Amino acid sequence: MVRWQAGVVVLVSMVLGAWVSLSHAAADREKLLGEPGVYGTFAAFTLDEEWAKEDQATRIAHVTVLRGVVEQHREKVAIDLYLMRGLSDHADLMFRVHAAELRDTQKFLVDLQNSLFGKHLKTAGIMNGLTKKANYVPGFPDQMKADLKTASEPGPKPYAIVIPIRKSADWWALDQEKRAAMMKEHTEATLPYHMTVKRKLYHSTGLDDLDFITYFETSKLEDFHSLILSLEKVKEFQYTRRFGHPTLIGTVKSLDEIMEILAQ
Amino acid sequence: MVRWQAGVVVLVSMVLGAWVSLSHAAADREKLLGEPGVYGTFAAFTLDEEWAKEDQATRIAHVTVLRGVVEQHREKVAIDLYLMRGLSDHADLMFRVHAAELRDTQKFLVDLQNSLFGKHLKTAGIMNGLTKKANYVPGFPDQMKADLKTASEPGPKPYAIVIPIRKSADWWALDQEKRAAMMKEHTEATLPYHMTVKRKLYHSTGLDDLDFITYFETSKLEDFHSLILSLEKVKEFQYTRRFGHPTLIGTVKSLDEIMEILAQ
Amino acid sequence: MVRWQAGVVVLVSMVLGAWVSLSHAAADREKLLGEPGVYGTFAAFTLDEEWAKEDQATRIAHVTVLRGVVEQHREKVAIDLYLMRGLSDHADLMFRVHAAELRDTQKFLVDLQNSLFGKHLKTAGIMNGLTKKANYVPGFPDQMKADLKTASEPGPKPYAIVIPIRKSADWWALDQEKRAAMMKEHTEATLPYHMTVKRKLYHSTGLDDLDFITYFETSKLEDFHSLILSLEKVKEFQYTRRFGHPTLIGTVKSLDEIMEILAQ
Amino acid sequence: MVRWQAGVVVLVSMVLGAWVSLSHAAADREKLLGEPGVYGTFAAFTLDEEWAKEDQATRIAHVTVLRGVVEQHREKVAIDLYLMRGLSDHADLMFRVHAAELRDTQKFLVDLQNSLFGKHLKTAGIMNGLTKKANYVPGFPDQMKADLKTASEPGPKPYAIVIPIRKSADWWALDQEKRAAMMKEHTEATLPYHMTVKRKLYHSTGLDDLDFITYFETSKLEDFHSLILSLEKVKEFQYTRRFGHPTLIGTVKSLDEIMEILAQ
Amino acid sequence: MVRWQAGVVVLVSMVLGAWVSLSHAAADREKLLGEPGVYGTFAAFTLDEEWAKEDQATRIAHVTVLRGVVEQHREKVAIDLYLMRGLSDHADLMFRVHAAELRDTQKFLVDLQNSLFGKHLKTAGIMNGLTKKANYVPGFPDQMKADLKTASEPGPKPYAIVIPIRKSADWWALDQEKRAAMMKEHTEATLPYHMTVKRKLYHSTGLDDLDFITYFETSKLEDFHSLILSLEKVKEFQYTRRFGHPTLIGTVKSLDEIMEILAQ
Repeated sequence: MVRWQAGVVVLVSMVLGAWVSLSHAAADREKLLGEPGVYGTFAAFTLDEEWAKEDQATRIAHVTVLRGVVEQHREKVAIDLYLMRGLSDHADLMFRVHAAELRDTQKFLVDLQNSLFGKHLKTAGIMNGLTKKANYVPGFPDQMKADLKTASEPGPKPYAIVIPIRKSADWWALDQEKRAAMMKEHTEATLPYHMTVKRKLYHSTGLDDLDFITYFETSKLEDFHSLILSLEKVKEFQYTRRFGHPTLIGTVKSLDEIMEILAQ
Repeated sequence: MVRWQAGVVVLVSMVLGAWVSLSHAAADREKLLGEPGVYGTFAAFTLDEEWAKEDQATRIAHVTVLRGVVEQHREKVAIDLYLMRGLSDHADLMFRVHAAELRDTQKFLVDLQNSLFGKHLKTAGIMNGLTKKANYVPGFPDQMKADLKTASEPGPKPYAIVIPIRKSADWWALDQEKRAAMMKEHTEATLPYHMTVKRKLYHSTGLDDLDFITYFETSKLEDFHSLILSLEKVKEFQYTRRFGHPTLIGTVKSLDEIMEILAQ
Repeated sequence: MVRWQAGVVVLVSMVLGAWVSLSHAAADREKLLGEPGVYGTFAAFTLDEEWAKEDQATRIAHVTVLRGVVEQHREKVAIDLYLMRGLSDHADLMFRVHAAELRDTQKFLVDLQNSLFGKHLKTAGIMNGLTKKANYVPGFPDQMKADLKTASEPGPKPYAIVIPIRKSADWWALDQEKRAAMMKEHTEATLPYHMTVKRKLYHSTGLDDLDFITYFETSKLEDFHSLILSLEKVKEFQYTRRFGHPTLIGTVKSLDEIMEILAQ
Repeated sequence: MVRWQAGVVVLVSMVLGAWVSLSHAAADREKLLGEPGVYGTFAAFTLDEEWAKEDQATRIAHVTVLRGVVEQHREKVAIDLYLMRGLSDHADLMFRVHAAELRDTQKFLVDLQNSLFGKHLKTAGIMNGLTKKANYVPGFPDQMKADLKTASEPGPKPYAIVIPIRKSADWWALDQEKRAAMMKEHTEATLPYHMTVKRKLYHSTGLDDLDFITYFETSKLEDFHSLILSLEKVKEFQYTRRFGHPTLIGTVKSLDEIMEILAQ
Repeated sequence: MVRWQAGVVVLVSMVLGAWVSLSHAAADREKLLGEPGVYGTFAAFTLDEEWAKEDQATRIAHVTVLRGVVEQHREKVAIDLYLMRGLSDHADLMFRVHAAELRDTQKFLVDLQNSLFGKHLKTAGIMNGLTKKANYVPGFPDQMKADLKTASEPGPKPYAIVIPIRKSADWWALDQEKRAAMMKEHTEATLPYHMTVKRKLYHSTGLDDLDFITYFETSKLEDFHSLILSLEKVKEFQYTRRFGHPTLIGTVKSLDEIMEILAQ
């Protein structure tokens, strides 16, 4: 069965490869992923039971539709894909979508779900957030600011983890100074893992039942584990009412890789 | 696929457009949306798995039935529609229904669910509330009352957010004066966002597992986010036992727009 | 569609009307609804997806079976029906069943679910309670006892609300005197709504995950809302661990009315 | 319909009756139900939607398979059956299985679920416990020990109730003496109901998300209600973190009775 | 039916036995199960409703595919199997997978779910953890270290139990010394059960909504019950926010045994 699957992968790659040239003018991905004031949506899906029963030709036809929908929206939104199956409960795929306007994200996801491929997707969860300028960093010591600016290690970071966070009412009742002091301690705890664990923060108060969506990428899961363990030991963690629930863990995949996995 | 879809939209618009003339005498929408003593129901639905499998002609036939049901009840109830798919978990559509008597709302929703279109709807959640005269505003300073009276910015407000709220037993145990002082601080926190975020309050104690349903419309989601963040920092927030769960976020749509999206 | 539906209603009424004469000797409804030591069960159901797809002749045949099952058990149990669809999450119908022995209620509900009609019902929730002599009233002042004895306003009360309640362990740890004092304050808060909101109390400790099932009927929902709001402000409410979850709200319907609605 | 059903019951009784002679050597039921060190498993099931649609001949064939599976395991396990439908949420049947080794219980339940009848069962909940020698009774006064030893009233006890319990961490942190004093108060509260409510205790720490499974049988549900109410008033109840959730209430049935009900 | 089943078991054993020779070079199981820095994933599944309806030949064909998938991944991952049906809610099978890299576990589970057999599996729950060097043991007295090193009793340990644990924020806020003292008390409580209950600890902070996954094997479930009861009595238990939910209990099975049970 192993060898046969390998053959299929090659075939699928060829069939799907023909689409690669069909790209539209892409959204300024760099800008959407780097600047404040951008909306980030994490949409997790499961494949329905009928997907598994479709024959391979149909599955290949349907995943090419997925590519079509992604291409069609590339002008407005930046789309990242993740394989969650096998590592997370009740989610098979996750889309991370960045857009200047949340309705562009909605248009993409509605088109996705209306498509021949999307008809096989069941929504497992949607979280919306907003990137903002760093709130507490401006008040940090210079050395700490410099440490935060050093880039993380180059090379692929295959694992992605999403942890939604809700702070307690007591947290928001603290004055800015006290919160800043605790966030300094929080940030110090993260520095040893700065090189191996990439982090990105989304503010989601009002856009969801959350205050923050924290997103991580790493090639060293053990470092990521140590990072979170350190964060549970600082004082600010006492003000966290919800941490995870769900913790979404998966692997970063290109559209081509996801299509190959789905087509098999 | 993109171009084909565009063509369908035009076709669907023409077919559905023929119905526009079939309107009955409408309920006094202005009155239902502006006065106290009116019941507001938020009914969120998902489309079942069979909807996606119907061919387009059937879908068009069914959404015209939706229009028929809406028209039929326009004398008694005011109906607003929202597209939740892509932004909210497990809800595709939301109806906001205002009526002088809750049984008129029930009649509409029962007819909707009994209709050919409604047979594809699964109830995701229903919340009932009641509009009442402002409880604390009469005691506010004159300047604050004046600020609250200025109209919000004109122009479309495409985003709508519904946040259900349950206060703690401690809140209701406070005397009216203490609650009024905290609601003054609460209201002050909302003033900077008064122009860009429209708000409407429904009281739902006893009508649901809630005390309030808060409804927002905005074109500037970042302002809405800042508004809610401000509200989490005032003292009154300490007395909130449930905030959201679910937070329902979507986009305001006309019946025609919803029908087009559904027919595709 | 409106006119056609009206015609159907007449037809359905005629077909179903033929059954009216088939009544058995009925249980002493007055006694079951008025005396202590009677078991009250609230059984809420949703209609399955296949119900919506049956043609009307089949639906009419099936609802006549509903009448048959109700008639068959009238000797032992008193049955009330409610339409929940459109107002409550995930419940379409509710049966309130009173019986001297809970197994007679079980026999009715098992026969109902085994019937051709019942095969389309999915259990949304079942709550069991017991009527008992008033616990605290004997110690109340005479004027209050007299006020409690005055009958509520005559005329139909179309709305029914069921709110399950669980008290905290602290409540049960209080001595009888302290609980009596708080229940006096509780009862005083209800008096202004005594004429327009009918109440009935079921004790369910041990019979369910509840301590009480509170049942209300009213034609003035706003009064009911004010009543519950008043009850949240008295001291006894601090000892309530669960209030609602679910709050079941619907409209009182006769068997004939329910059958007509179902047959459409 | 009533008379027809009665006829069916007779027919079913005759067809099923032929199996009665097919009994194997039974487990020492007396011993399994009376001694410490025995595992008790409560397995609650719902019937799937297809069961209702099978014709009666098929249903009769399938319930005879149920008898076969029960007979086959009688050497190792003692099996009791309960009808939950109509009284408990989301459970139609419950099996109470006693065995000296939990894997014998598993073998029975796996065979049950693999059988033609079992294919229609969906697991609603499984709880495992262990009978142990009384922990606190040896330290009780002699009169109390004597009271506990008197047998309950003879005659059938048609109702059965299962209440799972989880104690708080604070309970387990108390020294044995303090827990013993509270359990004495607890036991005193039960004495007035000793004659009419039979009780049995299972310890399930580690075998489930519980500390205890409490099992009751009675013909007087009102006494059972009063018993639980008394237990909520003693000090030990303050240390209970979970009580019920679910409370399972049903009626004790023989295998023959369950088969007749299922076959109808 | 009993005898027929026995015959089938023999037949199935023969058909499946032919596969035994087809093994690949296996992962260093000893190393994966004994060393720190290894990822352990617990994946629990239910069989879908269609599995029960497949005829036996199809079921046998599908379980041979299970063997194929397991064989295919043996180079990278160590796989253990458990039968949960009959003892745990909503789980029929559990896989425990050890791997040096979590993506190798994902590859196995994705291939499993994509296989003809896996199409019948629904994910009931996935938990990920990491083995680490003992945190507190180095500071324990020498005698205690020696006691911990003695091997558990030889012979099969048929029962396996998995209990996920989440500590409170207060626990992580304690300094290492205080936590070490409490873990010494915790460990002392486990010593009486060291010979009969095998334990293994996985750290899962950040990899899941947990801090630890605790895994137990025993032939004496009553000893395991006593062990957990002892652990609930030590001070450290006060800092446990979640213990179980779910508690997964089942029996250790070889691949051959699981295949035979599934094929029946």
